[in-house]
Amino acid sequence: MRLVDLIRKKRDGQELSAAEIEFIVRGYTAGELPDYQISSWLMAVLLKGMTRVETAALTQAMLHSGEVLQWNDLPRKKVDKHSTGGVGDKTSLILAPIVAAGDLVVPMISGRGLGHTGGTLDKLESIPGFNVNLSATEMHKVLAACGACMIGQTAAIVPADKKMYALRDVTGTVESPALICASIMSKKLAEGIDALVLDVKIGSGAFMKQEPDAAHLAQLMVETGERMGKRVVALLTDMDQPLGRAVGNALEVIECMDVLRGGGPDDLKNLTLELSAWMFYLGERTKSVEEGRKLAAALVDDGTALRKFAEMVRLQGGDTRALDNTALLPAARSKLEVKAAIAGYVAAMDCEKIGVASLVLGGGRSTKEDAIDPAVGLMVHKKVGERVAAGDPLCTLYYNSDAHVEDSRALVEGSYVISAAPLLKKRPLIHRIIQGTVLPPD
Amino acid sequence: MRLVDLIRKKRDGQELSAAEIEFIVRGYTAGELPDYQISSWLMAVLLKGMTRVETAALTQAMLHSGEVLQWNDLPRKKVDKHSTGGVGDKTSLILAPIVAAGDLVVPMISGRGLGHTGGTLDKLESIPGFNVNLSATEMHKVLAACGACMIGQTAAIVPADKKMYALRDVTGTVESPALICASIMSKKLAEGIDALVLDVKIGSGAFMKQEPDAAHLAQLMVETGERMGKRVVALLTDMDQPLGRAVGNALEVIECMDVLRGGGPDDLKNLTLELSAWMFYLGERTKSVEEGRKLAAALVDDGTALRKFAEMVRLQGGDTRALDNTALLPAARSKLEVKAAIAGYVAAMDCEKIGVASLVLGGGRSTKEDAIDPAVGLMVHKKVGERVAAGDPLCTLYYNSDAHVEDSRALVEGSYVISAAPLLKKRPLIHRIIQGTVLPPD
Repeated sequence: MRLVDLIRKKRDGQELSAAEIEFIVRGYTAGELPDYQISSWLMAVLLKGMTRVETAALTQAMLHSGEVLQWNDLPRKKVDKHSTGGVGDKTSLILAPIVAAGDLVVPMISGRGLGHTGGTLDKLESIPGFNVNLSATEMHKVLAACGACMIGQTAAIVPADKKMYALRDVTGTVESPALICASIMSKKLAEGIDALVLDVKIGSGAFMKQEPDAAHLAQLMVETGERMGKRVVALLTDMDQPLGRAVGNALEVIECMDVLRGGGPDDLKNLTLELSAWMFYLGERTKSVEEGRKLAAALVDDGTALRKFAEMVRLQGGDTRALDNTALLPAARSKLEVKAAIAGYVAAMDCEKIGVASLVLGGGRSTKEDAIDPAVGLMVHKKVGERVAAGDPLCTLYYNSDAHVEDSRALVEGSYVISAAPLLKKRPLIHRIIQGTVLPPD
Repeated sequence: MRLVDLIRKKRDGQELSAAEIEFIVRGYTAGELPDYQISSWLMAVLLKGMTRVETAALTQAMLHSGEVLQWNDLPRKKVDKHSTGGVGDKTSLILAPIVAAGDLVVPMISGRGLGHTGGTLDKLESIPGFNVNLSATEMHKVLAACGACMIGQTAAIVPADKKMYALRDVTGTVESPALICASIMSKKLAEGIDALVLDVKIGSGAFMKQEPDAAHLAQLMVETGERMGKRVVALLTDMDQPLGRAVGNALEVIECMDVLRGGGPDDLKNLTLELSAWMFYLGERTKSVEEGRKLAAALVDDGTALRKFAEMVRLQGGDTRALDNTALLPAARSKLEVKAAIAGYVAAMDCEKIGVASLVLGGGRSTKEDAIDPAVGLMVHKKVGERVAAGDPLCTLYYNSDAHVEDSRALVEGSYVISAAPLLKKRPLIHRIIQGTVLPPD
């Protein structure tokens, strides 16, 4: 088998066999195939597409490029959730303890923030001492003790993706549904899970702004997971404004604690309960999603989920005192209110701009190598549909350096669309639920 | 400017500016842009295409990636011919002396054979002592003395193409009209010519088997040349069977001598005179192609072209005695006749198989690193339309090693289609002539 022939085959719109795809993934991971051929192949894949059979074969080959975790001695079903990323999207920190409190196992491997989106690992690391760099053995101990563990990607898991993603990033080959699906699904299935809930974001703060693109990817991921024997659902959820009101790592942890204590913003709370409900249902903990919803709510109401979170934080080396006393979390030295110039109603927000407003303060990363400041970010006081008077604070910026405060303020101001008339129709929080095989045949 | 943005722009079907294309070509030639990004860009170019404006910009950027030859002190017009390659295609060796004998300057830079096609340099090097590796200064001396000089590609001329072609070869990005056009035209225009005749081959022995593909490339090259201020014509000519009867390097030199002496096969002679006629016309040596035809024929008939060829061979270090005494040319030790199994008429030949039959005997190269044997090859006794009796020799193979004789014989046998009925319609030698701007707007 010669890679150049496989490149030409894909270039000419033909379907590659599972053996051919495995040859590529295995050879590239082993360093036997050069970057310059793989990038040409990736561009052919992006422009010519892959069938769903090819996509599943790619996912399978990537999954087996490294270690696949196993938790055979833990009798409960293992479930996880994956989000395509957004602004203020902090549901993982809340749902992992809820679902573990409901006696399922959540072996979650997460990513860091990049660009305008935040990352679960960055949020967790704002808790003093919290260690996301656990080995599989250490993760097993935490899971056995409390049912939830949240760690970062390790070199042993799906090494093909690490190498391929770095190449895609610089060769204009990120935006392929097949490649995105294989990247996400291989990493999630390497967690050794039985079921997966996908939170696919849509709107101005999502990577996919339009529903058709997101729905296509969601369907592809659901079907790929099912081909590999997993129970999978995708919820297309709204990211046309930040989720909750906190954006920035320590600020988001505080908001998560609010939700676990029974408070917090409605959208964040409702979405988290909905995702948890699906995890309970797919993990066969409840007979229906509705029953899952009730269980999740009850576990928050009676404080079980909050205690579960504290237990996980403790087991991963975090200072649990910071959960009760937020003064122990990193805090920014300065703050600035961004005020409404005119009165009216918030008609829309450019959510990506809010993410970038936090990024430029130091809350996010432009490149993977950037360090982040866990203390900075912003609180959103006015969300879509809310009434504002002239001079009302729209957001408060929290920062440690003056360098980019003006940029951040301008981004926040530019993000808001304020109109005289109230909003007639609100976007739903959950746009669509995708289950089972709904794609047309190849 | 970031290359990844230009890759994405082309991937998304947008037109690149001349400055953007120059950034790519210049950066890649200088070693500042990595192969893995360029190959992804090349695949995007292949699959999304380039406008003619982009193609001209690419040609221009590649042309200026190295030295552009100048012959300002030679007062005559400089003209050349380029062929897309075929089997038995040896017109360059005949037309260069004809056109130089007609007082134009022919500064020809040629290539070597690859795959089933032969190369002018290999043919010339079968003449003992002939040196194709001349510097620009040495080439100038030869041109000043005799008007024609035939050399190989130098490192100083269009270095971008050398590097880019090597990458295209292993990344499935050869077959792009825009990239092929820029590769050919940049190298030809670097010769410092005023006019160019393109011989674009069609048929079973050509790279482009179908006329529409060849016509598109031809039109693109003609327009690109004209955009750059050159007079260009393309002749779409037949390569559905070998040109002439000799295939193989020394064998082809002998056949060229036959034509220069007034003999030789009609198809080879006619095509060469036609190409020469266009060179005379575009080089403003004659007022019409018809007049060019007469001039070319006269220069062969009176022996001027033959003497010009001998002079060029002598100036480039070749042994001119070998032109008169073919025993001084490399000769194969063994020969084998491939005979017709049945009687009838040659209805068709798979011309590429004839090329490969010579290649496997050692007359060609599978990879650029292969050495060739100048002595081997084959003589075609029966061509399309000719009557054969059972047992008549179809071809004679000339070889030095037994290793691949059976393969070669099988290829020749498999190449011939013999039918009971005579051929009703012969393919023309010249299918179409393309001049001026005939492409639809971008």
